[in-house]
Amino acid sequence: PEQEEVECVNGELLGALLTDLSKLNNSRERASKLFQWLIHPIPAKSFFRDTWEKKPIFVQRKNLDYYMGLFSTKEFDFILREEDVQYGVNLDVTSYTNGKRETHNPPGRALPFTVWDFYESGCSLRMLNPQAFSSTVWNVLSILQEQFGSMAGANVYLTPPGTQGFAPHYDDIEAFVVQLEGKKHWRLFVCPTANFNEADIGKPILDVVVEAGDLLYFPRGFIHQGNCLPDAHSLHITISSFQKNSWGDLLQRLVPAALEIAMEEDVEFRRGLPLDYLTYMGVQNSDKEDPRRERFFSQIASLMKKLTNYAPVDAAVDQKARDFLHDCLPPVLSPDELASSVQGAPARWENGQVKDVDIHITTQTQVRVLRAGCARLCSDGNAVHLYYTTDNSRVYHKEELKSFEVKAEHTDAMEFLIHSYPNFVTVGSLPCDSVQEKIALAELLFEKGIIHSAEPL
Amino acid sequence: PEQEEVECVNGELLGALLTDLSKLNNSRERASKLFQWLIHPIPAKSFFRDTWEKKPIFVQRKNLDYYMGLFSTKEFDFILREEDVQYGVNLDVTSYTNGKRETHNPPGRALPFTVWDFYESGCSLRMLNPQAFSSTVWNVLSILQEQFGSMAGANVYLTPPGTQGFAPHYDDIEAFVVQLEGKKHWRLFVCPTANFNEADIGKPILDVVVEAGDLLYFPRGFIHQGNCLPDAHSLHITISSFQKNSWGDLLQRLVPAALEIAMEEDVEFRRGLPLDYLTYMGVQNSDKEDPRRERFFSQIASLMKKLTNYAPVDAAVDQKARDFLHDCLPPVLSPDELASSVQGAPARWENGQVKDVDIHITTQTQVRVLRAGCARLCSDGNAVHLYYTTDNSRVYHKEELKSFEVKAEHTDAMEFLIHSYPNFVTVGSLPCDSVQEKIALAELLFEKGIIHSAEPL
Amino acid sequence: PEQEEVECVNGELLGALLTDLSKLNNSRERASKLFQWLIHPIPAKSFFRDTWEKKPIFVQRKNLDYYMGLFSTKEFDFILREEDVQYGVNLDVTSYTNGKRETHNPPGRALPFTVWDFYESGCSLRMLNPQAFSSTVWNVLSILQEQFGSMAGANVYLTPPGTQGFAPHYDDIEAFVVQLEGKKHWRLFVCPTANFNEADIGKPILDVVVEAGDLLYFPRGFIHQGNCLPDAHSLHITISSFQKNSWGDLLQRLVPAALEIAMEEDVEFRRGLPLDYLTYMGVQNSDKEDPRRERFFSQIASLMKKLTNYAPVDAAVDQKARDFLHDCLPPVLSPDELASSVQGAPARWENGQVKDVDIHITTQTQVRVLRAGCARLCSDGNAVHLYYTTDNSRVYHKEELKSFEVKAEHTDAMEFLIHSYPNFVTVGSLPCDSVQEKIALAELLFEKGIIHSAEPL
Amino acid sequence: PEQEEVECVNGELLGALLTDLSKLNNSRERASKLFQWLIHPIPAKSFFRDTWEKKPIFVQRKNLDYYMGLFSTKEFDFILREEDVQYGVNLDVTSYTNGKRETHNPPGRALPFTVWDFYESGCSLRMLNPQAFSSTVWNVLSILQEQFGSMAGANVYLTPPGTQGFAPHYDDIEAFVVQLEGKKHWRLFVCPTANFNEADIGKPILDVVVEAGDLLYFPRGFIHQGNCLPDAHSLHITISSFQKNSWGDLLQRLVPAALEIAMEEDVEFRRGLPLDYLTYMGVQNSDKEDPRRERFFSQIASLMKKLTNYAPVDAAVDQKARDFLHDCLPPVLSPDELASSVQGAPARWENGQVKDVDIHITTQTQVRVLRAGCARLCSDGNAVHLYYTTDNSRVYHKEELKSFEVKAEHTDAMEFLIHSYPNFVTVGSLPCDSVQEKIALAELLFEKGIIHSAEPL
Repeated sequence: PEQEEVECVNGELLGALLTDLSKLNNSRERASKLFQWLIHPIPAKSFFRDTWEKKPIFVQRKNLDYYMGLFSTKEFDFILREEDVQYGVNLDVTSYTNGKRETHNPPGRALPFTVWDFYESGCSLRMLNPQAFSSTVWNVLSILQEQFGSMAGANVYLTPPGTQGFAPHYDDIEAFVVQLEGKKHWRLFVCPTANFNEADIGKPILDVVVEAGDLLYFPRGFIHQGNCLPDAHSLHITISSFQKNSWGDLLQRLVPAALEIAMEEDVEFRRGLPLDYLTYMGVQNSDKEDPRRERFFSQIASLMKKLTNYAPVDAAVDQKARDFLHDCLPPVLSPDELASSVQGAPARWENGQVKDVDIHITTQTQVRVLRAGCARLCSDGNAVHLYYTTDNSRVYHKEELKSFEVKAEHTDAMEFLIHSYPNFVTVGSLPCDSVQEKIALAELLFEKGIIHSAEPL
Repeated sequence: PEQEEVECVNGELLGALLTDLSKLNNSRERASKLFQWLIHPIPAKSFFRDTWEKKPIFVQRKNLDYYMGLFSTKEFDFILREEDVQYGVNLDVTSYTNGKRETHNPPGRALPFTVWDFYESGCSLRMLNPQAFSSTVWNVLSILQEQFGSMAGANVYLTPPGTQGFAPHYDDIEAFVVQLEGKKHWRLFVCPTANFNEADIGKPILDVVVEAGDLLYFPRGFIHQGNCLPDAHSLHITISSFQKNSWGDLLQRLVPAALEIAMEEDVEFRRGLPLDYLTYMGVQNSDKEDPRRERFFSQIASLMKKLTNYAPVDAAVDQKARDFLHDCLPPVLSPDELASSVQGAPARWENGQVKDVDIHITTQTQVRVLRAGCARLCSDGNAVHLYYTTDNSRVYHKEELKSFEVKAEHTDAMEFLIHSYPNFVTVGSLPCDSVQEKIALAELLFEKGIIHSAEPL
Repeated sequence: PEQEEVECVNGELLGALLTDLSKLNNSRERASKLFQWLIHPIPAKSFFRDTWEKKPIFVQRKNLDYYMGLFSTKEFDFILREEDVQYGVNLDVTSYTNGKRETHNPPGRALPFTVWDFYESGCSLRMLNPQAFSSTVWNVLSILQEQFGSMAGANVYLTPPGTQGFAPHYDDIEAFVVQLEGKKHWRLFVCPTANFNEADIGKPILDVVVEAGDLLYFPRGFIHQGNCLPDAHSLHITISSFQKNSWGDLLQRLVPAALEIAMEEDVEFRRGLPLDYLTYMGVQNSDKEDPRRERFFSQIASLMKKLTNYAPVDAAVDQKARDFLHDCLPPVLSPDELASSVQGAPARWENGQVKDVDIHITTQTQVRVLRAGCARLCSDGNAVHLYYTTDNSRVYHKEELKSFEVKAEHTDAMEFLIHSYPNFVTVGSLPCDSVQEKIALAELLFEKGIIHSAEPL
Repeated sequence: PEQEEVECVNGELLGALLTDLSKLNNSRERASKLFQWLIHPIPAKSFFRDTWEKKPIFVQRKNLDYYMGLFSTKEFDFILREEDVQYGVNLDVTSYTNGKRETHNPPGRALPFTVWDFYESGCSLRMLNPQAFSSTVWNVLSILQEQFGSMAGANVYLTPPGTQGFAPHYDDIEAFVVQLEGKKHWRLFVCPTANFNEADIGKPILDVVVEAGDLLYFPRGFIHQGNCLPDAHSLHITISSFQKNSWGDLLQRLVPAALEIAMEEDVEFRRGLPLDYLTYMGVQNSDKEDPRRERFFSQIASLMKKLTNYAPVDAAVDQKARDFLHDCLPPVLSPDELASSVQGAPARWENGQVKDVDIHITTQTQVRVLRAGCARLCSDGNAVHLYYTTDNSRVYHKEELKSFEVKAEHTDAMEFLIHSYPNFVTVGSLPCDSVQEKIALAELLFEKGIIHSAEPL
């Protein structure tokens, strides 16, 4: 059965695949199918079980066109021509010669003439946020972020033939290196220590030439180094995720909050330290054998264990969720979604006046949130707020995360709407006290672009 | 002869006029012709002699189409649909009811549906920087800024029929109210005092209905109030200039610098105050008749008069010039200019490799700066820098003002290039010591988009 | 035996007691004896077992002179006359009338005339840091801080007859209210909730008139209110300690550090969160019954428990120790200590030249640190520093905490010195590699006022 | 007659002189007499006419005791022993060997032992604010500041025999080098340029050995260098004044304010710059011969000349006056002044209660301000404030400048009081509307220590 799922995406070109996905009823399904396409033919289930966060994997496809349509040097050239690409902000020009890395960004806009001049003289080009310029990259990443439950980012690297790449190094993200054109020679190493020395890294655990259509995945912490071959340029896009998304990162939010609660609620945490603890604790006393040290340690251990009882796990998760919502790309709407949401509503100026601005939401109107994860209810203890991604920007954090306070009489309905996804529900079925409230909530959410209707309004 | 000049722009539609202007050899001529079109049929010469900064003027044309092509509500609607217009940043929604002004900007992107909904319920819309969205507005303002020698800005105001406008107020700019659609009733008053009271403003000195194709100009400080008529909406664009561009504004830069120099160079400024001056000067002694007060005042007068001798006028002008360069819109290039400059150079990616990146500037190449005022040499006493507008953004101050240090062996050539405008000069004629230097300077300026060549390279 | 210890301090006047204490060989013994005097006749051991941090206690002595010599209104008057006491900084003037508290501090220096004028008109006076002005208070607090292992602070309150005091409130310190003159009526209440309402506080658990010579102790969190009787003014000093000195305060330093280490050393903490955790965790999912929630919680619990293994307890204690060292009052030296330390070294200017500046420390010189806790070795992982209190100021945090890096060849000797206290050791016995190093270390410590010698040098 | 004035201070020792001065009725007379003592036998009148700010002068007295009592190394030693002198804040330890200056300040308090150890090893000692530690220096400077109408500061320099001093340099103050003990060899040079090179300074214009009792004065800008002789140490105090007290410094306050007013009141300053001024002004056009440049320069000159008409001279003087009041040392009160002012009022605590707090000011009470310049009325256009020095600190700027708003009904009386000095006036004669107001103002000023009475109250 897994095999079948894999098959169904095989061979499709990206454009057709994205069209097909847009017809799927559920954004989470879209996400898992697109991810399956990315790592095909490895089944996602076994990938996440055996490979993810554990080891590198190389998928050689012998199919140069597999990733066609995602991005190309042609599109890169087009973007330089049409968009305001700024050196240092959107594009880095670097060279790596005899072990020395140099950055050559001049000030100002990156025009094709100067960019290609750098390229011809052997420089590598890195586009830092292709999703802001390429609608396809935006679409792909905005779908994948639902698969990861964590921001999906991307960089594009274009390297001329015969050039070295960066020094061997490791990153703090899960990396999917998608080869789009030409080829690149990659070597991966196991990281010996945090502050490794290039001389210490030993033999590569993987040494391959990645060609167009191939995929190379490696987890955070694996040292990698790529270089171009003399006969071919290389264009790849690295899709990354799971930056600062570990259990430890969650605990960094959770543990101080737990301690604050414990100190309020549990007198044991408020109790004074022993009068004389400074005489047997601390580095200058660490070699002493003193039963008071044992008791001190065990009191610490006991309190830290107890701390778990006060840990506000859901609230800390919501802090991380808000960060993720802020990181999210806004959804790319399909024609049907546009036609049934405020983003594509037909209201317009025509012949000297406003047309089609009256949209009637009734209790019969069927609605749902635009994406499984595009809106989230969080509580700070006093008020409940709805945070949503539909007003985010394609440019990372260009906008503040948008939210509004949800009135008490709307919270149940809001929760109902979120949990009903992917199903449409009638406005009349929202658990509010009055028809007016039901309509008011639906209108509010519609105007903010959070919900759409089953049929165009 | 003046009359003739006026005639020649009469009756042209804006699109055709801009095309014609792009063929003019000199950006300063373009600027004066476009300005003449704006205020037609008043001759520019008499306008600047009799009206500018002195009194309001109303040009009634009975020609609804005179300004056609500059901007329209249709284009406004299109911009909302296609561009990321943000409430509060690019668009303000306001109402003015019973003397109370309210702003209704929600957070996030201004979508047509919500914008037109506000409009239908009686709100006025103000687009804050139409030049960032409309290429025609950008083009017109970028030409006019050369006429003014000061930033040309614009706001667009769309008001539904039958609504009041803002409270009567005055601004600190020269304002050209260009009526684009519908009509608006304007009243202008003479400002009685700085902190005027609405009750004090007396009778209007002008009370007119401005219709599409008409122009209303008024200088800074004139109180104005507009309101819509019951039977028509109003769309106008206000083009403004000369903010903080007075002699006093220049003196604010000049006088402290003059004083600093005087204190370094003139011992009289370093001389100590009289030992006992605090006993006869100051507010508590201001009623005293004391010959020492007279002497004190006359010493102050003498020093202030002498200060003029130390005033670094050109350096202070350059400070203002740099501010203006930073405020400038980047030039809009004509097809010919594109073809002969780096902005439109044919370098590109094609068939897996870079094409046309080799551009050969020779001593025979004829070049000039792109616009009369697009680059300026300034000196801080030690080094000479070239400041230039060609890397500015359409969005106000989105980019820092760009500049680079001009090598000593290039300053004469740079000055020669600037002063030669509008003439093209051969690279070989640049006053540099060697052919290499001549080519190097020309290449540098070409790559930064500051010069273009007489023929495509 | 406990009884005996108590007896030995009974009846002594403070001046004589302090002289006796200065002859004691060990600063920790001094501290415990002085504390015993403070709470006499309650044995310290039972006080710390039964009362400290647990419940208020009232010691009625019927001995008006018990605390004589600690502070008096006479001394207060003398300080106003001789020292630069600033309103708002060193002295607060307040009134509390009909439930309304007012502060009356004018700007500037508090002169006797204006201060006594306020007092006569019914205002209360609070001196904020009597230790900066009174040598006896400084001495007492600097001794007691060794008993508490936490800063000992003090405020003096002088209230005219017949006035109300502050509104009932609670503090976050352990408070010893030492009645010096007159009497005051105190009522103590159990705190019902954190944000209590004056109406809720119920009946007092203690309702007493405290007279000169009496002591009232209450732990943090106990609501208290005092007021003067019609027939007597009141002067008391409140000695406080243990602010931010709880196990929880230590954990606030410890836990984030533990987490940082765990994330470096333990891959489980670096492991990514479940891909789909946002779909079942967070407030909007908190009502869901989902086995994945259980697993999530238990993983959190497991990691938090494991965190204890990485807790750098001694390093966190040292952070608190450094805070305490910074809070410490500098020691008050006895004549013998002065004569044997740099603070009282006889070097001086006499007859036009320097005398007695040659002090010879030899291997025979016997030295020890000036106080048990006046210096402390801490390590930040790379270097070892010695932090010391002897250059602290009597004014809270007026000086930065002083420290210097201890050379590797001196750390053992430094530790040896600290742990040898209260015994003197010869410089020759310091565990350094060479005689030069031994002498160099001793000279350095002597010059910084950290050690003194058994005999004057 | 001048000669007589000089005579009268000749030969007096400082202590006796200060006592005599304290009996003088007028603080300005005290100041001029003390200054006369400082420069004796040069008559002050001729000094200020011929020497002050113009040239150095050396007064050789052959009277080692002339300045006795002002400061001594003995007092320096005493201060180290008794006061909290901090290295780097109050005391700098420097050496100057082979042209290299080094600072040796350790952290913390400067104890006699370490200070004299530095001295013995050849270091120079500079006490930065002796007025904070020495009452005589405080008294002398607080008197001299009235003579200068500008802050009088001081540094003390103690140098061991045979040491070099600082590198030759110049300062921005008028310096009176008062030799107190030993001797020092000084050389003075004329400053060739602002950034002079030690090699360029040429021959000294003065080359003298200054001995105890001698005075060396030199104005700002004169290069000076001193060094000790092999056979004697040197102690001198440098009294300085007139830092930032030039006409130029006043103009820095005045000119921007004048410009602001001119721009509000004079339309010529608000008039726009010529449309095309950037094409002929600025550094890149500075070589052009263009009549428009002439017109531009002459318009600038005309406006700058006109600026004088708007210069708020008294207000600018008041800004400088406030700075001076903030810089002022508080006055040192004589026993008589203490007895007749709040600073020495007899209010006190005695036998358990307050005594002598009732001070009765009546309309018969004769009062005056404590010093000619201890209080000053300034207006900010809206309100009138009284600024006063009597709450200043001996430590530079330790306290904010104190002031309070003067009620409209008190301003005339306040002005009357200030201008009546040195005469006492009865409270009844104050020009207020009612007896109550007269008494209220007098009480307020008395409590703030600004006035005193002719007789103790």
